[in-house]
Amino acid sequence: MKNIFVGLIGLGTVGTGTAKILLKNQSLIGERLGARIVLKKIADLDIKRDRGIQFSPGTLTRRVQEVLEDPEIQIVIELIGGIEPARTFILDALKRGKHVVTANKALLAQHGKEIFAEARKNRCAVAFEASVAGGIPILRSIREGLVGNHVKSLYGILNGTSNFILSKMTEEGREFTEVLKEAQTLGYAEADPTLDIEGIDAAHKLAILLYLTHGITVGYEKIYREGISSISALDIQFAGEFGFVIKLLGIFRETKKGLEARVHPVMVSRDHLLASVRGAYNAIYLQGDAVGNLLFYGLGAGMMPTGSSVVGDLVELAHHIQENSQVPFPSASRKKPPDILPIQELVSRYYFRFSAMDRPGVLSKISGILGKNGISIASVIQKGREIKGAVPIVMMTHEAREADMRKALKTIDRLDVVKRPTLAIRVQEFNFMDHLQKSWR
Amino acid sequence: MKNIFVGLIGLGTVGTGTAKILLKNQSLIGERLGARIVLKKIADLDIKRDRGIQFSPGTLTRRVQEVLEDPEIQIVIELIGGIEPARTFILDALKRGKHVVTANKALLAQHGKEIFAEARKNRCAVAFEASVAGGIPILRSIREGLVGNHVKSLYGILNGTSNFILSKMTEEGREFTEVLKEAQTLGYAEADPTLDIEGIDAAHKLAILLYLTHGITVGYEKIYREGISSISALDIQFAGEFGFVIKLLGIFRETKKGLEARVHPVMVSRDHLLASVRGAYNAIYLQGDAVGNLLFYGLGAGMMPTGSSVVGDLVELAHHIQENSQVPFPSASRKKPPDILPIQELVSRYYFRFSAMDRPGVLSKISGILGKNGISIASVIQKGREIKGAVPIVMMTHEAREADMRKALKTIDRLDVVKRPTLAIRVQEFNFMDHLQKSWR
Repeated sequence: MKNIFVGLIGLGTVGTGTAKILLKNQSLIGERLGARIVLKKIADLDIKRDRGIQFSPGTLTRRVQEVLEDPEIQIVIELIGGIEPARTFILDALKRGKHVVTANKALLAQHGKEIFAEARKNRCAVAFEASVAGGIPILRSIREGLVGNHVKSLYGILNGTSNFILSKMTEEGREFTEVLKEAQTLGYAEADPTLDIEGIDAAHKLAILLYLTHGITVGYEKIYREGISSISALDIQFAGEFGFVIKLLGIFRETKKGLEARVHPVMVSRDHLLASVRGAYNAIYLQGDAVGNLLFYGLGAGMMPTGSSVVGDLVELAHHIQENSQVPFPSASRKKPPDILPIQELVSRYYFRFSAMDRPGVLSKISGILGKNGISIASVIQKGREIKGAVPIVMMTHEAREADMRKALKTIDRLDVVKRPTLAIRVQEFNFMDHLQKSWR
Repeated sequence: MKNIFVGLIGLGTVGTGTAKILLKNQSLIGERLGARIVLKKIADLDIKRDRGIQFSPGTLTRRVQEVLEDPEIQIVIELIGGIEPARTFILDALKRGKHVVTANKALLAQHGKEIFAEARKNRCAVAFEASVAGGIPILRSIREGLVGNHVKSLYGILNGTSNFILSKMTEEGREFTEVLKEAQTLGYAEADPTLDIEGIDAAHKLAILLYLTHGITVGYEKIYREGISSISALDIQFAGEFGFVIKLLGIFRETKKGLEARVHPVMVSRDHLLASVRGAYNAIYLQGDAVGNLLFYGLGAGMMPTGSSVVGDLVELAHHIQENSQVPFPSASRKKPPDILPIQELVSRYYFRFSAMDRPGVLSKISGILGKNGISIASVIQKGREIKGAVPIVMMTHEAREADMRKALKTIDRLDVVKRPTLAIRVQEFNFMDHLQKSWR
C-alpha cells in the first residue's frame, strides 16, 4: 500500500482529534482509500504535553519549517487558527505545491480571495470542511451533492456557543450574563466571547457558505451582524407565548430585490426543526431550487467531530494525489457574483419590546408612530409590573421594511414615556417550497 | 468547453426531473464542472407524451440500444426501476465501459454484488445517491465526509409513503386503511402499496446503507422486517400518552453481540428530532465514532429532489472522465463483512397492546406470564370501553430480550381471556454519545 505523507501544524484540540482518528481508524481509512495516510510531522509550540497519543519518534517538532520544507509531505493541515501566522504558513505550503486542509474560518472569510488565488496558481487544493459546522459534511454536500442546484436560501445555527447559551436561557429561564459565565466555566465559551456571542464567528461561516453557493469571496464585511447579548430571559418568555423560540441564525436568501446575507437573533416557530436544535449543536436548513428543503444537523465543534471533517478532506485530497487528478475547484467561479443587499432593504415581521411608563395613552402614541411609518401591528401583549419605572409592552408586527422599522423606533425611543431603547427581533418564516416547485413547470 | 455525453433510460418522473435540471441549470453546472453535460439520447417506451421539455430532434428513442451502443455516451442513467430489464441494461452498459447512474434501490439491494463486481471488472463506476432518501446527499456524506468514521448506528425514516401515512394518522387521529386510500388518491402511495407499507423499500435502502458502511453486499434478505399495516389510531394515541411518536425506521446498530439490522415501526420520544419529521420527508440519524450524532433531512422522493441527486452523481462521474481518474470505490471492501444478528437476539423496551376481556384477574395472568419470561413492566394503562368483547390493556416494559418477548406473547395470546393477537412495538432509545466519546480517551 502506498504511503501519502501529511504534515500537521497545530496540535490543539482539533489537531489532537485528527491525529487520534488517523491512528485509531488507520486500517479502515486505508481500506477505503487504498493508500496509507502517514502523519509524518507535527509542529506545535508545546510538544511536551501528554495528549494520549503515541507518536513515532521525531514526529513532533517546534519548527513549522520542518513541516513546510519536507519534500515528502504533500498535504499540510493548518489547525492553529487566527489570521497570522496561519495565513503565511498556508500561502507558503501552497507555493511549495502542497495541498492544504484547514479549519480556519476567520482566515478564509477575510483572506479567502488571496488564498484561493494562490491555490489556483499552484494547481493545489484548499479543503476546509472543518471550518463550517464542525462534523457536519455541509460544504461537501453543497459542493457535490447539490452541484446541480441554485441554493436559494440558507438558515444556519452556525455557532454552538451562542446556541448553547440561548438554549440554556430558554430551558432554565435564566439571564444571558449568568449563562455566559457558566458556558465559560464549562469550556463552551472563550474567556473573550466576542467572536461567538456577537455573531462574528457565524458571519465568517456564512461568508464561506456564500463563497461556495454564490462565488462571493469578499462577503464577510458586507454581512449585517447582530449578536445575542441584548436578548433577555423576558424576550425568550414572550417569544414562547407567541409560539416562537429565539435562535441566532446566519441567513442568506435570494429575493426579487437581490441577495440578503445577515447574522442576527431571530424568532423561529416552535414547530420548525431549527427550533429543536439545542445545546452546542449546529444545523443548516437550506433550499435548493431542485432539491427543495434540506436540513443538516450535528456537533458544530469539538475534538472528534471537527477532526472527522479534517480526515474527510484529507482522504479526498489523498485520493486525488493517488490518481494524479485535479481536485474540483470548490466554488462556482461566477464572472459576476451578486451584491449583498443593505439591511435597510429587508422586509420582515418584527417583535418589539418597548420599555414604557405605565400611563394612559402610551400604547396609542407608540402605535400611532408605527402606523405613520407603514408598520401594522399583528398582536400586542402588555403585562407584568413596572421594573425600574417601566413596563414591557410587546408587539408582533406584520411585514414591514427594515428602514421604516428603524425610523419608527428612533422616533419612539425619543418619547418621554419610553424609558429604555426598544428591542427589535426579526421573525423568520420559511415558505419557499411552493415558489421553488412552480419554477420547474 | 468539452462535451460529456450522457444517455438516459427511462423518462418517467425522476428522468424528467433530471432532464429539467440538466437543461435549466446547464450554465451553472457547466461553470462548476468546467465541461458541458449533454443528454444525447433518451430511451423510453412513451416518446410522445409532453413532459414540458424541448429536446433536440433525435434525442428521444424507443430503442434502448441507441443509448447503450452509442460510443460517444460515457455515462448511462438508468431510471426505469424494477429488476428486469434494468439489470440487463446496467450490466450491458458496464461491459461496454460506460459509467452508470441509477436510482434503483430494489435492484442494488438484490443484485448489488453482481453489479458492483461487473463495475470493478470494467473499472467503471456505479453511482446511486438517488436510490436512498431522494434528494438528501446521504450516501456521499457517508462515503466521503465520514470516511474516517466507523458508523456505529443509523436510524432512518427511509420511506416517505409510510411516513406520510403515519404522520396523517398521528395528526388527524385516523385509521391506517383510510389514510392509505387518501395517500393513493394523492399519488403518495402506489396502487399496490406493499413495497412501501411492508417495509420492503426501507429494507432495500437500509441494505444499500449497510453496503457503504459495513461492506455487506448480501444483507437485504437478512434484514428483519415489519410493516405499518397493523398500527392503529389507538396505538398512536397510547404512544402519545407515554410521550412517544410511532415511526417506521430502518435501523442498524453495532452492539457487543454483533450487528443489528431491522426495519419495523418503533416508538420514538416526542422530543427526538426524528419525531418531528412529518409527511413525505425522509431523515437519517446516525452515529459515527468520531463525528458523533448527525441528522440529515429532506424530501425522500419526487421529480426534482431525486433528479438533484442524479445530477450530483453525473457531475462527479463527469469530473472523473475529464480528469481521466478512477472514481473512488464506494464501499469499504472488507475482507469479512459482519453477520447480521437474528432478531431474537434484540434487547429492547416494548409497548404491548393486549385485547383482553374485562374480567378480574386478567392483568395478573398477563403480568404473571411476562414475569416468568423475565419481562418486567414499567407502566400500564387500562382504560376505555370494550370493543368487540375486549378492552385494550397497554403496557410499557423495561428492557427485555426479543426471544423472551415472543415466547411470552405466544403464551398470553393462547389465554381464553385474550381475544386478539397482542400488538408489540419496540421502543427506540438513542444513548450512544457517552459511549462513543469514551472510546477516544
